[in-house]
Order: sequence, then C-alpha cells, then structure tokens
Amino acid sequence: MSEVRTLKVALLGCGNVGAQVARILIDDAEALASRTGARLQLSGIAVRDVDARRDVELPRELFTSDAETLVKDADLVIELMGGIEPARTLILTAMQHGASVVTGNKALLAQDGPTLYEEADKAHVQLSYEAAVAGAIPILRPIRDSLSGDRITRVLGIVNGTTNFILDQMDSTGAQFADALAEAQRLGYAEADPTADVEGHDAAAKAAILASLSFHTRFALEDVYCEGISSVSAADIAAAKDAGFVIKLLAIAEKLSDEEGNTGVSVRVHPTLLPREHPLAAVRGAFNAVFIEAENAGELMFYGQGAGGTPTASAVLGDLVSAARRIVLGGPGRTETTTGNVPALPIDASVTSYYIGLDVADQPGVLARIAQLFAEHGVSIEIMRQTIHRDADSNVESAELRIVTHRAREAALSATVEAVKGLDVINSVTSVLRVEGV
Amino acid sequence: MSEVRTLKVALLGCGNVGAQVARILIDDAEALASRTGARLQLSGIAVRDVDARRDVELPRELFTSDAETLVKDADLVIELMGGIEPARTLILTAMQHGASVVTGNKALLAQDGPTLYEEADKAHVQLSYEAAVAGAIPILRPIRDSLSGDRITRVLGIVNGTTNFILDQMDSTGAQFADALAEAQRLGYAEADPTADVEGHDAAAKAAILASLSFHTRFALEDVYCEGISSVSAADIAAAKDAGFVIKLLAIAEKLSDEEGNTGVSVRVHPTLLPREHPLAAVRGAFNAVFIEAENAGELMFYGQGAGGTPTASAVLGDLVSAARRIVLGGPGRTETTTGNVPALPIDASVTSYYIGLDVADQPGVLARIAQLFAEHGVSIEIMRQTIHRDADSNVESAELRIVTHRAREAALSATVEAVKGLDVINSVTSVLRVEGV
Repeated sequence: MSEVRTLKVALLGCGNVGAQVARILIDDAEALASRTGARLQLSGIAVRDVDARRDVELPRELFTSDAETLVKDADLVIELMGGIEPARTLILTAMQHGASVVTGNKALLAQDGPTLYEEADKAHVQLSYEAAVAGAIPILRPIRDSLSGDRITRVLGIVNGTTNFILDQMDSTGAQFADALAEAQRLGYAEADPTADVEGHDAAAKAAILASLSFHTRFALEDVYCEGISSVSAADIAAAKDAGFVIKLLAIAEKLSDEEGNTGVSVRVHPTLLPREHPLAAVRGAFNAVFIEAENAGELMFYGQGAGGTPTASAVLGDLVSAARRIVLGGPGRTETTTGNVPALPIDASVTSYYIGLDVADQPGVLARIAQLFAEHGVSIEIMRQTIHRDADSNVESAELRIVTHRAREAALSATVEAVKGLDVINSVTSVLRVEGV
Repeated sequence: MSEVRTLKVALLGCGNVGAQVARILIDDAEALASRTGARLQLSGIAVRDVDARRDVELPRELFTSDAETLVKDADLVIELMGGIEPARTLILTAMQHGASVVTGNKALLAQDGPTLYEEADKAHVQLSYEAAVAGAIPILRPIRDSLSGDRITRVLGIVNGTTNFILDQMDSTGAQFADALAEAQRLGYAEADPTADVEGHDAAAKAAILASLSFHTRFALEDVYCEGISSVSAADIAAAKDAGFVIKLLAIAEKLSDEEGNTGVSVRVHPTLLPREHPLAAVRGAFNAVFIEAENAGELMFYGQGAGGTPTASAVLGDLVSAARRIVLGGPGRTETTTGNVPALPIDASVTSYYIGLDVADQPGVLARIAQLFAEHGVSIEIMRQTIHRDADSNVESAELRIVTHRAREAALSATVEAVKGLDVINSVTSVLRVEGV
C-alpha cells in the first residue's frame, strides 16, 4: 500500500459545516482512504481571518487567507464560504485548474448554476452539491441516478428547518408566529435576521435545484414563485388543525399542462395545508424531508436532518469520496442531463386546492351567493363549513366560513378570491392558503 | 444525433417486474436515450416458455428460450429470473463477455454475492442490484455513495411488504395472524406458500445485503439470525399497543462491541416492538422503509413501495441507465468497498431491550422474586406492570405481568427468560419480543 495516491483537498470557508468537514478529514483519514483508494490530504483552509477563534481545534498551519493559490494546487476543492463572490470565481478557477468541486452553496447554484455546470463539463471535472439541499439527506443523487430510468411527476419538500420548527411550534403550542420565531432564535434554529428563512428565499433556491434535477431542465431562482410564512397566524394554524390539516412551508416542483395543453413545470414555495395523515405531516421540529412522486416508482420519501454542521458535513464528505473515487478509477465527471427543456410555468398556471377563511355577515342566502360565485369562476367547492358566533354583549351574530376547494388552476382561484372580497356580505377574508396531498 | 450509439440490453425473465421493464424500455425509449446518451435497445427476452400468456403485450419476436446466446451478445444484461441457477451461471457468462449486469436477485446475492462481485471486478463491468432491497426505494446507492464519507452505526429496515401488511392488519383490526395472512393472500400481498415472507427468509437476504454495504464487509445469509412473524399473536399486538408500541418485522444491522471489546456487526431479522412515535412505526400496509443512523448524518429514513412490478422496474431502470452512462462515458465499474472486515456477531452478542409477558400466580412477593431474578442476571427493568384478573365463577385470581427491560445483551436476556420459566409462581411466559427505537 506504499503506492497509494494522495489527493490534495482544499477547503474554502471554516464555519459551522467547514470546521466539521476539516475535523472529519483529519480524524477519519484512514477510513476515508480505504473507501476512496487514495489518501485525502487536507492541504489548506482558506478563511478571511486566519486568527479568528473557532469551535473545532484545527492545526494552525492549515489556515491561509490566500484562497486562490490554494485552489490552483488542489485535486479537490470544497467550497463552503457561501455567497456569490468570491465563491463563484474560486470555483471556476478550481475547475479550470482541473479540480473537482464539492459545494453546498445553494444561492450560487440557483443564481448561476448553468455557468458552473458548463465549466465543469468543459474541464472534465465533477461538480457535486448534495449538501445544498436538505443537509444530510441523500436526495440529489437518488434523483439524478436512482430515478434516472423513471419520470418524476412531482416533488414536495420540507427543505428549511427554521420554518418547519416555527410552524411545528405554532401547531403544537398554539403560539403566534412572532413568539415561535423568538423561540427558534433562542434555540439557535433561526438567525438574528431570519428573512432568508421565513420569507422562503432559502427554500426557493433549493426548489430551483430540485426542479432542475427532477425535470432535466435548468431552472433559476427567478422561475420560482415564493411566499414565506410571516403572515401565517395562530388562527390559520388552529383552523387548519380543526379541519385535519397541518401547515408546512413546502418547496414544490410539478409537471403540469397549461390550458393550451403545453407542458411545463410549476416551481413554487408557499405555506401549504397538508392532511395530517400525509407522510410529510409527521416531519417535526427542524427536520427536513422530500416527498417524490414518480410514474413508475410511485411515492417515495427521504427524511433526515436538514442543517447543522456535522450532518451537512456528512453530505459534503459523501460527495468528496465519490469525486475522489472517480479521480482514482478514471472516468467521467457529472452525469445529470438537461435534455428535458420543459418551460417554467408562472404561478397562475399551477393547480392546487385552496383553503379560504371568511368572516361573513350572518344573514340568509350568504352561503348560496358565495357558492354561486365559486361556480361562476369554475372552482368546485369540496368542503364548506359555517360557524356562528354570537357576541354576548352586543347580541350581534357573525359567521365564520371555511371553504376547501377541489383542485383548480391558480388563476381561477385567485380571481374567485378577488370576487369574493367584493361581495357586500363579506366582512373580511381571514386566510387564503394552498392545500396539497389531498 | 445520427452518431448516437446503441447498447444491446438482454432481459432474463419476464414475470411481474420483467414485463414492466420491457414495456418501459420500449415505451420510453426516447427519454431513456436522452438521459443515457445511447439508445437502449431491448435485444431479447429469455424465458422458459416463449408461448406463455403475459399481462403486458410485448413483441413476439423478442422472446427466446436461448438465454445463453442472448447474454453473450449483450452490452447490458438484466437478470430477473430469480433463484440460484441458471441465474448465477448466466450472470457470470454475461460479465465474462463484457456485459454489465443489473439484477434484483436477493437470494443469489445473499448466498453467492462475493463470487459475483469478484467476477465483476475482474471483468471491469458493473454489477448493480438496487431492486433487490426495498423495491423502488433508492437505498443501496445512497448507502454506497452518499454516505461513503460517514460511518453508519445502525440500519433498521421494514423490507418485506407482506409481513408489514399482515402486522399492520393485526394492529389495526385486532385480527389473528392466520386471518391477516388469509386477507393478504386474497389481496395478492402474500403468495400461496407464504413461508419465505412470513418466516423472515426474504428479509434475511435483504439484511445481509444492507449489512454488507453499510459496514463495508461481506455478510452472507448464514450470518443473519432470523425469526419470522408466524408466532406473533393478536394478544402480543394488543399488549404492545396498550404499552404504546407497534410490532414490526425489522431487518437490523448494527455495530456492537462484544464483552471483550471486539467490534462486530449483529445482523438479524425478528419481530420488534417500536414506540408508536418512531418514524418507522408510521409505515403502513405493504410499504417499506429503511431507517439509518450514521455518526455524522444522524437519523435518516427512506420510504416507498417495496414491491410490485412497476415500482421495482423503476429501480431496475435506474441501475440500467447508470450502468449505460458509465459505458458511454467510460470509466470504472462498481464502487462499493469491502475494506471494513468487521466480523458478524452471533445473536447472543446483540444488545436490545426485551418485552416479556408473563401469566403469574397472584400471591404476595411474586413481583419481588421476579425482579430479583432479573437483577441477578444483570438485566435492568425499565417498566413492570401488573394487571389482576378475577374469574367470576371460580373466584380465582390470576395476574398478568408485563416487563420492558433496559438494553442488555441478548445472552443475558435469554438466560433471564429461561430462569423465569423455572419459577414455581410462573404459570406461563406468554410473549418474549425484542424492542428497538427506545
């Protein structure tokens, strides 16, 4: 075994995930070598401040602020800096110098993936990014390889642990959004500025990546319709619970035909009602899961930890060992295909059910008028439930109306909601939420 | 695209799965070609009786009874005949003639895997078998590739749909085993001779494959301890339910250290109590799921359809497209490693909790004597619950005692049960079942 080859591994970034990757590369060197067929030697860690304090103790001499020199001399580059620049330029430099790249940078992939894929092809190197979606859960490789002989029709993913934790807290304790967010921040599940998570931007980048691999077509961030959870109220959660649903922030990619029969993919992120018996409804706390429907395979679900230094490091190292094996054994780079070329559909073309909560005047004929309005818009009602409240002091009655529609095109649904708002018997529309899994 | 290469695909066997594979190869030829980079041409289907009636309509001229000639002229061979011979010889012949092989033959892999792996290595071809474990669920590739930079510590799998359907029926309807089996047979979930399923032999072959990939060591069928579900009674299910558990037939592979500190892997199949809140407890009907614990990734679960022609065909085609891509792009064959070399441990060395049901005499001091006996064997009791029954006619009281132990070595647990049986205050030991996931 004296002839065993050594591959130089450059690490860019030493945050939560990067530090764990470095630790495992050092601590598990022997096991990794035996699985790879080559020694994976951590040649350096590029960071902004080489003197910064870190949670994991790592040899001082590995650190450098000269990322460019490091990547030019590496066989494998792990990019965990995040952000667009300098990550983008360093990845391109690495590939141009013949290094395969492992990254967890979903923002960069969603924004500028095509440039990176093309460069990887041109340089005959691999670009892998399992860590970019759903942390430790092996999901991209199964989609790309295991399901390569099947046709995926729909992907529903809980791909953001922060929002799942918040919604789960609201569901189990009845808390308002602001209180559940504060609790998530206290426990370290949400950042001080939680915008990227709670407004769905993080999930949208992951949706673009999932859609691209599932439908063999490159979708960018601007193809993704995005709604966050900051407007989900405790009342929405309670009403959903009462009707047998749970509210989850889902990343959705599904193949649809528009009214003219043209096929496209609807890629979207929004709070969604799911029946409590749906496998995704049981995904609690900060866990992630991706539910896939394929023509032949049927329903599949992949479940695990979506974030955290050590779990995400597992995904990075899986990519690293696979890329290193490919170098040792020879052979091709990436194997995903983008021959599908199906267009992204606007949100108006998507087909879902709606849950609509209305505060209505309690007078005869209200239900009939509302039902008539839905029918005029071609939207079929599945469930309509009215609850009467009487204010003991004023003796005024008000009525709460909850409607679940059958599946209909988004454009028809939103037009219906607009029309309902114009009715004089409507005091207010209290919630409009999409429903999946029914 | 006139230069696109054609790869000849030979199919051996045309049962439930084989017929669907043939149908998809023909119907989806264009999509498969675009993902593969080569045309996958079904060159023939070898069957015993070319004139037999089949559920799927397939071109008559594809059928042949001369399997040997077919495999010698193929680039890719799909073996779905099942059984040991002639499948084994045909697979070896195919590889010796340079064909990569896709098989779903778990019995053959569990019995004679090492011979097949060695031949694949020698011939520089690929041998893939995703369909052999958990049908449509991508599980072998994630273990082999995605988790290649991690250390799997434990695998718990519901890998037999027949037994999961039967146990789920017993759990939801209170049926006895024989009635649930009859229902499974009526619905086509169980075969006329259900032995291989209900006695755990099918799950044991899958356990050997899962253990081999998870621990980088080759385990054979004889390394697997196997107990089926035919002795699980409605009373066992009811008692488990009452205590917050569900009974599942699990395939288990876990790394343990024996009393001398030597590390090994316990591979076993047996009916197992799981807490109702465990992710595997929610796997209903004939669905399969594999739950993996890894040092860095933490807990992962993979869920989907474990059997059926079309779902299993999806796994076969995923392997086929991956193998074909490898041929088109050049490069190495299989990439799993067997450098782990950890020994298989006997069942006595495994560590679990026990659930024990006892019918005991209702007299003072019985609980204390039993507790004392457990303590003498070094087995710690977690829960002990006594229920008193009084026969209204005879006025005789009997007591039912249910014990859940803490985790202990199997040898100590079984010795404890033997000793308990010898106590004069014990009328009978009504059930002894292992517990996981607590």
